[in-house]
Amino acid sequence: MITSLNNETIKELMKLKQKKYRDERQLFLIEGYHLVEEARKHKCLKMIVTTLQEQFDEETLYVSSNVMNKLSFTKTPQPIMGVCQKQNHNAIVKEGKRYLLLDRVQDPGNVGTMIRTALAFGYDQIIMSLDCVDLYNDKVIRSTQGALFQMNICMMDLSLAIEKLHLQDVKVYGTALYKAKDINVFEKQEKMAFIAGNEGQGIDKDILEQCDECIYIPIQSIESLNVAIASSIVMYHFH
Amino acid sequence: MITSLNNETIKELMKLKQKKYRDERQLFLIEGYHLVEEARKHKCLKMIVTTLQEQFDEETLYVSSNVMNKLSFTKTPQPIMGVCQKQNHNAIVKEGKRYLLLDRVQDPGNVGTMIRTALAFGYDQIIMSLDCVDLYNDKVIRSTQGALFQMNICMMDLSLAIEKLHLQDVKVYGTALYKAKDINVFEKQEKMAFIAGNEGQGIDKDILEQCDECIYIPIQSIESLNVAIASSIVMYHFH
Repeated sequence: MITSLNNETIKELMKLKQKKYRDERQLFLIEGYHLVEEARKHKCLKMIVTTLQEQFDEETLYVSSNVMNKLSFTKTPQPIMGVCQKQNHNAIVKEGKRYLLLDRVQDPGNVGTMIRTALAFGYDQIIMSLDCVDLYNDKVIRSTQGALFQMNICMMDLSLAIEKLHLQDVKVYGTALYKAKDINVFEKQEKMAFIAGNEGQGIDKDILEQCDECIYIPIQSIESLNVAIASSIVMYHFH
Repeated sequence: MITSLNNETIKELMKLKQKKYRDERQLFLIEGYHLVEEARKHKCLKMIVTTLQEQFDEETLYVSSNVMNKLSFTKTPQPIMGVCQKQNHNAIVKEGKRYLLLDRVQDPGNVGTMIRTALAFGYDQIIMSLDCVDLYNDKVIRSTQGALFQMNICMMDLSLAIEKLHLQDVKVYGTALYKAKDINVFEKQEKMAFIAGNEGQGIDKDILEQCDECIYIPIQSIESLNVAIASSIVMYHFH
């Protein structure tokens, strides 16, 4: 059992809490039973545990509670973490019928929740702009509840993505507060893509101009819905 | 300008970071321009600022950046906070047509987002069970984006609330994963209430039995949607 924070393996794992090293090593940490279980169905390279509860096929690292507390992102960690290989997020627009595009979405909870919801509604791909929050941020991962491991996610320039989608006859919808039409006038299309915009600024003006239609969800009293909520309603509406 | 953390007023304000003192004093802290602006339309007792930018009608406390950093809940605080009076959350079911009931919902972001969404969809009241996360938790307040100040929120035993709702001819829907019907078979009713359940356990079994109908949102790949997402879809569906 590793009890020292100066252990080389632990020091290396600690680095994965920073995006820079996650990018360099192409690895990331996950924690908790549910996420580890989901990860093991796909790709989990190494287990980190404080107690020997079951035999794992993966390489397993035993650490003290103290070490686990430092590795963990939460105050009261579960006694299990995992090290996973980052997926391939090459700028390739997949053949499909439903796409969710994220334009500079910054809140990790929002991004994670949108991935979870898109998976639930059978989306083929999520296309993230290059300046969204890091997909491997611990809060993003936690909010996906494991959906991260099942969803095809690519990262690329959204303008280029829309061009590619148009070549595949995909109708692209922007969600906007102004100069937009009520979502209720639109019917389901065979191939559709929706863009969710930055929490404060919405969708970039140039990106919005590439959209086939701009839609809004009719609401009252307040200016806007949370972006994960709005996206989910759009996904549900066109489901 | 107050520069010392030992100042009695600051010590008193610091206490409001704990639920116990918020309950005792019936006061809570908010922070940032947007929330303070919303609060001032309703009830903001005192402003806390680091720089004199404009004249406020409210009593204003000038503090150093160091003091603001300690009072704030965020790492890089905006230079403005406010002290507000807690609202009255007496166990009174209002006359209305749309209600959202929260059964032991624990995540502050979920509760805040649900309040914001319910306001956007014109809900008359939110009824929180007594064991939800504290409404005045800073993350709840932030997620409401100010909707907290406009929404009627009562806290009471949900079983009793459902009895009262039934007396007012309100149809009560539970969202559940099992023994439930597809939401798409249901049409809008004049008076409706929805219950959102605890993130891990869903709605309490006894509460579920009091419901007129149990509904689910048809999804694939994963077991459930985030509770704020599911509630929003239900609210949108019956809008």
